[in-house]
Amino acid sequence: MNCASTPRPQLANRIKNLTGSVARDILSRTQNKSITSFAGGLPDATLWDDLQLPQVPATAYQYGPSEGELTLRQILAERTKSLGLQSDAENTLITSGSQQGLDLAAKLVIDPGTPILLEAPTYLAALQVFQLFEAKIQALPLDNDGIDPDTLDDYLTRNKAPLVYLNPSFQNPSGACYSAERRQQIAAVLDRHPVILLEDDPYRDISYEGEAPPPIASFLKNAAWIYLSSVSKTLIPGLRLGSLCCSPELFGPLLKLKQAADLHSNRPAQYIAAEMLANREINLERIQTLRTHYREKRDLMQHALERHFSGIAGWSIPQGGMFFWLTLNQSVNLAETLERCLEKNVAFMPGTPFFVPAAKIPSCLRLNFSLVSPEKMEPGLKILSQIIKGQLGS
Amino acid sequence: MNCASTPRPQLANRIKNLTGSVARDILSRTQNKSITSFAGGLPDATLWDDLQLPQVPATAYQYGPSEGELTLRQILAERTKSLGLQSDAENTLITSGSQQGLDLAAKLVIDPGTPILLEAPTYLAALQVFQLFEAKIQALPLDNDGIDPDTLDDYLTRNKAPLVYLNPSFQNPSGACYSAERRQQIAAVLDRHPVILLEDDPYRDISYEGEAPPPIASFLKNAAWIYLSSVSKTLIPGLRLGSLCCSPELFGPLLKLKQAADLHSNRPAQYIAAEMLANREINLERIQTLRTHYREKRDLMQHALERHFSGIAGWSIPQGGMFFWLTLNQSVNLAETLERCLEKNVAFMPGTPFFVPAAKIPSCLRLNFSLVSPEKMEPGLKILSQIIKGQLGS
Repeated sequence: MNCASTPRPQLANRIKNLTGSVARDILSRTQNKSITSFAGGLPDATLWDDLQLPQVPATAYQYGPSEGELTLRQILAERTKSLGLQSDAENTLITSGSQQGLDLAAKLVIDPGTPILLEAPTYLAALQVFQLFEAKIQALPLDNDGIDPDTLDDYLTRNKAPLVYLNPSFQNPSGACYSAERRQQIAAVLDRHPVILLEDDPYRDISYEGEAPPPIASFLKNAAWIYLSSVSKTLIPGLRLGSLCCSPELFGPLLKLKQAADLHSNRPAQYIAAEMLANREINLERIQTLRTHYREKRDLMQHALERHFSGIAGWSIPQGGMFFWLTLNQSVNLAETLERCLEKNVAFMPGTPFFVPAAKIPSCLRLNFSLVSPEKMEPGLKILSQIIKGQLGS
Repeated sequence: MNCASTPRPQLANRIKNLTGSVARDILSRTQNKSITSFAGGLPDATLWDDLQLPQVPATAYQYGPSEGELTLRQILAERTKSLGLQSDAENTLITSGSQQGLDLAAKLVIDPGTPILLEAPTYLAALQVFQLFEAKIQALPLDNDGIDPDTLDDYLTRNKAPLVYLNPSFQNPSGACYSAERRQQIAAVLDRHPVILLEDDPYRDISYEGEAPPPIASFLKNAAWIYLSSVSKTLIPGLRLGSLCCSPELFGPLLKLKQAADLHSNRPAQYIAAEMLANREINLERIQTLRTHYREKRDLMQHALERHFSGIAGWSIPQGGMFFWLTLNQSVNLAETLERCLEKNVAFMPGTPFFVPAAKIPSCLRLNFSLVSPEKMEPGLKILSQIIKGQLGS
């Protein structure tokens, strides 16, 4: 056989579904500091300017348990328990960010063609994982109070999806927060079907008008559940630590999947997180500071949006999280908007990657307010609005 | 529908193949300090007793690039390049331990039923990953100079496996190290087939009688390759950092798979590793110290084995790595041996999990010499040998 003509190796089917992260692509195109980026979902680094990480003991240097460090598991389980979940260290797994929780959940449930249900719009990095595992994805329309329980019931009855992925508290991207009543209704529906609720809850602590209602999983009486949390939004994202808490019967397989994925998460980071989270009062203070800081930024963005987007877009004021979600009154080519914006050093996220590819996706934009400095907020949104108005006019 | 009678959700097919890590199960059963464990593959923690981790700059707190930190990628790529691989930062990906490299490679290539080839015995955690992804695994017999090139050629011609997994330098578990000539022969065979070589090389730096020959991937002229390395064996395992270097055409999909798996590896650990590896001379000194330390332990184990296992087992003296691999002259129920040993606070790894389940697996034991303290080495092996002799006698 001639070497030069040897065909290339066959890759797995799933590679055809492999889309990169649009957010990360924009991020890598905007690495220079003069950009005004509403595109990503990064915390504000000025919050930890003076932070020194605690010293790490030598015991953290050796290989560690796949479950994670017991102290950290206990601290995180106590928090989850206070939200009403059946949670202790025994069913709490430390993950390499909550992104890994999505990977593990997908491995647990999804064969090629497995039907799964999620919100439209949904968190784009979760969508990517489910597509990668070749799920047959069906999206349920999301309004400000969540998905409709009857629609969910209907879909579950018809397609027997074993996994429902929801992000009910200050959802990325829409900011939607399900009411307590809606959560109970959803839980009651889930309890009637052979399904796992995968509840992703990274923004819960970043609330601006009181606490979010308890997790949907806390209302379940029968259905299995996996609850994902993260320290990335409220502590230090670079640590890449999240946690997964689940119905006891799912813990064994998820732990083995974790072993196969990376043996365990990095230990110095776990010691650092445990040390920083150990004192509940200091932690609450830190979260209050963070809420105040981000609330001010949210309000700044709201004022700027009123000034520049009234009449061309609709939106709700997010009660938590890090994003505004705008729906334009008229359809616009947002890929073109993005290119024109980047030329003027402004970045944002077009809404398309938050939807399952389909015939009709509304013209939406996700605007992050946590990262941008206050003085760049209004000028950046003005540029964005002018470009869109130019497109609408032409 | 009655809640109590709702069936449980359907899990993915791969979950049927989900075996836990035998090593980790033994580890969790031997958490008390009085145990003499030859079971795991842990570095000797006394090597870093006095080590203080470098300070981490605040720039490491934010989310980071999926590729990993550029400085660390450059340092690791330079090392790989010095081994003869086409390597620079652009095709070097930081992974969460080399275990994650196995997960990413499996995702890249394996659909249910995809044939893959590996050594018998092979690294058990790799075997677990390939089984989890439902590969059709075929194992090629391994002797001290590796697998047979003609057999490999024959298998590749017949079953068109797109992935060949090899661990040619001081293999875990066998200690085998392929000669330079054998590596060239294997590379020539691989070059004639549409295949990816997945070369796992975590023990290269732990050599006792001179350097291992260059990686097989360095001899390839045509075939695609993925080369995995790790800082776990020579720096600090708790950091959970490895690296993956590959044929340029595979880097794009592997990077996207990394994004989907955990966005990026923890950044403080990457800064710490880069700082510790930056000075080449200090690093070489550290590796020399490590080699001397482990060589002494290897020699201690060899003496003890001669004393207690002559006549009942055969083995080669490993020229690198952390393990002796014993083949018993007569078949013994090693699960029973392990139970009896644990009662006497001695642990070892039975050979079975290093083989694809098959009709006939020889009675082998893997004995780790890096972790056990010198004074416990001989007494522990004596107990192990007495138990086996008892089983042989009965």
